[in-house]
Amino acid sequence: MVVLGSTGSIGVNVLNIAKRFDLQIEALIAGNNVELLNRQIELFNPKYVGVADKSLADLVCHKNVFYGNEGIVEVINLSASDLVVNALVGFLGLKPTMEAIKCGKRVALANKESLVAAGKFVDVSKIVPIDSEHFALWYLQNGREIEKMTITASGGPFRNTPLDRLKDVKPKDALKHPNWSMGDKISIDSATMTNKLFEILEAKWLFKTEKVDALIENKSVIHALIDFKDGSTTAHFARADMKLPIAYALLGDKFGERILPNIDILKIAELSFEKIDEQRYPIWSFKDEILNDSDKGVVINAANEVGVERFLSNEIGFLDIFDIVKSAFYKFKDIKVDLFEDVFEIDKEVRKYSKRVK
Amino acid sequence: MVVLGSTGSIGVNVLNIAKRFDLQIEALIAGNNVELLNRQIELFNPKYVGVADKSLADLVCHKNVFYGNEGIVEVINLSASDLVVNALVGFLGLKPTMEAIKCGKRVALANKESLVAAGKFVDVSKIVPIDSEHFALWYLQNGREIEKMTITASGGPFRNTPLDRLKDVKPKDALKHPNWSMGDKISIDSATMTNKLFEILEAKWLFKTEKVDALIENKSVIHALIDFKDGSTTAHFARADMKLPIAYALLGDKFGERILPNIDILKIAELSFEKIDEQRYPIWSFKDEILNDSDKGVVINAANEVGVERFLSNEIGFLDIFDIVKSAFYKFKDIKVDLFEDVFEIDKEVRKYSKRVK
Repeated sequence: MVVLGSTGSIGVNVLNIAKRFDLQIEALIAGNNVELLNRQIELFNPKYVGVADKSLADLVCHKNVFYGNEGIVEVINLSASDLVVNALVGFLGLKPTMEAIKCGKRVALANKESLVAAGKFVDVSKIVPIDSEHFALWYLQNGREIEKMTITASGGPFRNTPLDRLKDVKPKDALKHPNWSMGDKISIDSATMTNKLFEILEAKWLFKTEKVDALIENKSVIHALIDFKDGSTTAHFARADMKLPIAYALLGDKFGERILPNIDILKIAELSFEKIDEQRYPIWSFKDEILNDSDKGVVINAANEVGVERFLSNEIGFLDIFDIVKSAFYKFKDIKVDLFEDVFEIDKEVRKYSKRVK
Repeated sequence: MVVLGSTGSIGVNVLNIAKRFDLQIEALIAGNNVELLNRQIELFNPKYVGVADKSLADLVCHKNVFYGNEGIVEVINLSASDLVVNALVGFLGLKPTMEAIKCGKRVALANKESLVAAGKFVDVSKIVPIDSEHFALWYLQNGREIEKMTITASGGPFRNTPLDRLKDVKPKDALKHPNWSMGDKISIDSATMTNKLFEILEAKWLFKTEKVDALIENKSVIHALIDFKDGSTTAHFARADMKLPIAYALLGDKFGERILPNIDILKIAELSFEKIDEQRYPIWSFKDEILNDSDKGVVINAANEVGVERFLSNEIGFLDIFDIVKSAFYKFKDIKVDLFEDVFEIDKEVRKYSKRVK
């Protein structure tokens, strides 16, 4: 397989599973962590490797080094693998997703932005999501008629922070996720609930339904629930560990081995369920609109990526991330995405705008 | 279909579903509630009816009235229906279960005692359980390898009663179940946790596994959980209403209509999970032994039926029910059930013994 984003938290877990089940790695694409990439090269002996830019390429111990976004596309085209794992972060993951599908490959997709920004152009029959929530929904489907899908949110690090103190929280606070260890971008998206908004939009495309919602279950033990039309509701419980969805994405159904220990429900002892509060997570007020008019996904995503970057570089405050998204949302409220190429145009414009807000 | 126990709480729900889906009723067997039986006869126009004994038969408005246990067996043999709903209470339900299977019929089984007393002789391929917990387990199966099955208990009306006051509780207290409206016998079995012990033993026979346990979820929202070997756990949530398992038992899978409203998980807000405490529910100390050596099912059942009767008639106290069961359990601890007929012999002996205890 080809692994895009091999040195990130998903990438590392993907390689753990690959090692355990003796899966061949044809290509490894990393960002800036050359040190870890070199160790992965030694362990997996890939045919192709890639890094973020040319200056890093010389530091990579391999004879076939590609770089930049063009390098990723090149590697996908050169590779013989049937499966591409896309664990890239952000909008730059979209092109590789589309390229892999164009080449007839399946995509194990951890890159949320592909579906958020351009879901209507993606052939989801080629996609297996790497995500606890979508995996859980997939696992719970049983052929019976579905009334509603619900995914869970942990509420992030600021679930109990007094509302008037949110304006002062710093990147280091926002990066301390209570239940999951994840990369920086997704940790911030988790703190703002943008991550969950994106997952709802992904679910719309993956499962072809707009009857999807989210709630807070703060222990991250339940990842999703399905209401069936008969009156049954089922839920998927598992430890907060990406190895389970990764194993299914890489190995398909019924590999028949233990991936995680089961949760101990008696140790968990108590679970609580809460509405997502729009005061604390103002992005949630866009939920219905973005489910109805998903062309706005590219706008919210671009503005959010800029907002998160600006927050992580201490240029703006935590609450300003949403203000940027809101400003862009209304600025571009009449946007229509007709062609796939439009997505890149709009993304560029929204970024330009979002960098200037405030 | 043939409905045994038509005037009980399960029977009434069965007829509700039959009415809604326009299912034909060939026979109605009731106990002593002739008034309700007569109304059911008017509504469903069955070919055969039955009551508990001869003295009641004259009060039944029907030309084909049978009575007693022999009457039940006769009706099963006469009937052309493919399905027998067995919602009889107690050991007397065993013979009709076996007779129906012998006649090549399927049995929708609410009578727990059939499997508890004689599970090893019952062809479970002919059985569909009418029970929220076993229905939930059945619903959650997905073809993947199972590690463990767990059913839930509400804890009954005495879940929070101080232990030193249990000896003084009266039948009227024990009959007040917090979450379910059920018949007297099963309500008492619920208060002592005997009902859950029986359900675990039933699950052993139905699902051919000894990896089955129970825990307390006091809202009766979750009815069962399955731990899968991969590390996933799934749970079945539904309102505490027997119509759902009944609809599946009568109509088979995928009838595609709403039976119950889905639970509202946000209204439920909190769930808790507790171990079953052997001090409060001493019957639970027999769990492992009865799963290992299920021949003892007939002993526990017979002693329990006598104990519950004696308690309901105010002859003994609540805690004495278990003392009778325990006394019989050790008295008959070396019992072996080799032939189906032995079950009836042992049942008789244990009852004789249990009536004399104390």
